[in-house]
Amino acid sequence: MKEFKVAILGATGAVGMEMIKVLQERNFPVSQLKPLASARSAGSTVKFNGEDVVIEEATAEAFKGMDIVLGAAENDISRAMWPAIKESGALYIDNSSEFRLTEGVPLVVPEVNKEDAFKHNGLIANPNCVTIIALTGVAPISAISPIQTMVASSYQAVSGAGKAGLEELEQQAMDYAAGKPLEHKAFAHQIAFNLIPKIGGVNELGYSSEEMKLLNEGRKIMHLPDMKVCCTCVRVPVLRSHAISIDITTERPVSVEEAKAALAKAEGVKLFDDPNQEMYPMPLNTSDQDLVWVGRIRKDMIHENGLSLWVCGDQIRKGAASNAIQIAELFK
Amino acid sequence: MKEFKVAILGATGAVGMEMIKVLQERNFPVSQLKPLASARSAGSTVKFNGEDVVIEEATAEAFKGMDIVLGAAENDISRAMWPAIKESGALYIDNSSEFRLTEGVPLVVPEVNKEDAFKHNGLIANPNCVTIIALTGVAPISAISPIQTMVASSYQAVSGAGKAGLEELEQQAMDYAAGKPLEHKAFAHQIAFNLIPKIGGVNELGYSSEEMKLLNEGRKIMHLPDMKVCCTCVRVPVLRSHAISIDITTERPVSVEEAKAALAKAEGVKLFDDPNQEMYPMPLNTSDQDLVWVGRIRKDMIHENGLSLWVCGDQIRKGAASNAIQIAELFK
Repeated sequence: MKEFKVAILGATGAVGMEMIKVLQERNFPVSQLKPLASARSAGSTVKFNGEDVVIEEATAEAFKGMDIVLGAAENDISRAMWPAIKESGALYIDNSSEFRLTEGVPLVVPEVNKEDAFKHNGLIANPNCVTIIALTGVAPISAISPIQTMVASSYQAVSGAGKAGLEELEQQAMDYAAGKPLEHKAFAHQIAFNLIPKIGGVNELGYSSEEMKLLNEGRKIMHLPDMKVCCTCVRVPVLRSHAISIDITTERPVSVEEAKAALAKAEGVKLFDDPNQEMYPMPLNTSDQDLVWVGRIRKDMIHENGLSLWVCGDQIRKGAASNAIQIAELFK
Repeated sequence: MKEFKVAILGATGAVGMEMIKVLQERNFPVSQLKPLASARSAGSTVKFNGEDVVIEEATAEAFKGMDIVLGAAENDISRAMWPAIKESGALYIDNSSEFRLTEGVPLVVPEVNKEDAFKHNGLIANPNCVTIIALTGVAPISAISPIQTMVASSYQAVSGAGKAGLEELEQQAMDYAAGKPLEHKAFAHQIAFNLIPKIGGVNELGYSSEEMKLLNEGRKIMHLPDMKVCCTCVRVPVLRSHAISIDITTERPVSVEEAKAALAKAEGVKLFDDPNQEMYPMPLNTSDQDLVWVGRIRKDMIHENGLSLWVCGDQIRKGAASNAIQIAELFK
C-alpha cells in the first residue's frame, strides 16, 4: 500500500490538532508525520499513533520530501508558504480561504464534487466550514433538481474562531458560574448567553465575509454559477457544531419524500428527522464525528418548488479537518 | 386621572412577575393590584410599589370588580377562566395562544395595529413573542410597501419556556462549570451549549406550532391575509432575548436607505446597524428593556424586492409582559 509523508501546517491550532486525530482515526497511511507550527511551539511534541512527534518550525525548508501538506494556518501564512510547498512537489490541501476562489484551484467537498480534486495543480482548497456542512446537506437534493436559490441563517459554534474561541466560551461559562465578570477577547462581545450576528468584516453591500463564502464557494463547488444565495451568519454559544437553517428552491418541485430518500442514501449524510420523537440534528448529537445530519425537512411555505431544512455538523471535523483528509484520501 | 383595578392571572410565572414590574416602571395607574395564582402560591406575597401584596387563588370569583385582567397563564387556564372574566366585565388581555386566532378577538402589537384593540368584546389577545418582536421590526418597512413573503429563522431564549426554562439553563451552566452531568426537564434535550430546532408540537406539514404562529398571527396583525411566511424556530442557550433572521420581499423594492429611515423614526424600534463598529442587536444589549432593535439591514441577494435584516428584543418584556401593558395603556 502507498504511504504518505504528511506535514501539518499549523499543527497546534484547533483544526491542526484535529487533523492529527482524524489521520489516526481514519487510518490514513502515514509513513511520516511532520507537525509544523510557529517557532514558539517548535520543540514541543504531539502524540501520533502512540508516539511523541516533535513539532518543527514552519520554514520554507520544512516541506522538502513531503507528499502531502495539510494546511490549517491563517491566510497570510498559507500565502507565504505556498511557493515553498509548490517547490517541494507536495500536494497542498489548504483550509485557509486564501486560494478558494482562485481560478484553477479546485475547491472540494468530496461528497459533492470529488472529480474536481483531480484537476489540481498542486493545490486543493478546503471550503469554509458553513459551506461544507450546508452543501453536504443540500447537494443530494440538488442532484434531483438543481438549486436555484438558497436562504440560509447559520448558528455557528465558537470553534470557528479556533482554540481561542473555544477557550473563551469555556472561561465565560466558568466565570458566570463563579459570579465573576465575563471577559472577552476572541470575540467582539461576550458570547456566553449571547448571539453575535457578524462573522468577519462587512462589505459595502452589508454582507459579512462569512456570508459571502456560502454564495461564492457554493457556486464554485456545486457548478451552479447562477445559484442565488442570501445568508446571515451568527455566532452562538455552542462549542463545536454549526447548524444552518436553509430554505432552497429547485428548478422543479422536489417532494419531501424524494428529498428524504436522496438524503437517506447520500454519502456523508445522516437523515435524522422525526421531530415529534425529539429527533432532529443538534450540536449535542453531531459533535465529534464526521457525518452531516439533516432534519426538519418540509415543503417551504412560500414557493411551490421550495424546501426548508435544518443541517448540523461538527465544525472542526467535517467543517475543516475531516474534509481535508477526505480530500487526501482521494489520492490514496 | 383614571385608575384601574388590575388582576394578574398567573402572577408567579416569569411573564406574570414581569407584568408587575412593568406596571410599576411604566407608571400604569393602578388603584388595586390583585395577583392571582394557583392555590399552592396563594398566601405568599409580591412587592408592588414598595408594598407587599398577597397572592390570591385564581378562582372564578377573583375577577369581580376588576377593570383589567392581564393573563399570563397557560391556554387551559385561560380557557377555563374566560367566562368568569367576561362575567366580571373586566377587559381581559391574554398572553396565552388560546384566543389569538379567534374571530372577533383583536390580536395587537400597539406599534403595528393599535386601532384593532378598540374593536374588542372584552378580550384582546397578546401575540406570540417571536411574532411581536419580528413584526415590530418589519412593520415599518411593510408600511412603505406591503410584505409579500417572509423567511424567518429564530434564535429563541429559554425564557420562552418560562421560569423553568430560565432555571434549567442557569443550572446547566452551573453544573457544567462544576464538572457535573447536565440534567434536563424543561426542554427535551440539554440546552446549554446546544440548539433545539423544535418549539411546540410538529404538524402534518412538518412545521412546529411556534413556526405556524408567525404565519397565522402575522397575517392577522398585519392585515395581510396573503402574506406567505416560512419560519424555522430554534431554541438557543440565551436567557431572555429572542433574535430573528428575516428575509422579506415587498410589493415594490424598498431601498436600504428607505428602510433605515422608516426604522429610525418607528415607535418602539431602535435602529442599531453599524456592523463594522460591532454595533448590531444582540441578546446582550436588548435584554431588560422594551425596544426591539433592528440591524444588519441589507438588500436580499435573491430578490430585486428583497431585504434581509436581524431583529432582537426581550422575550419576557416586549415579547410578552410589556406588549400586554402597552395594550392596556391604550385604554387609559
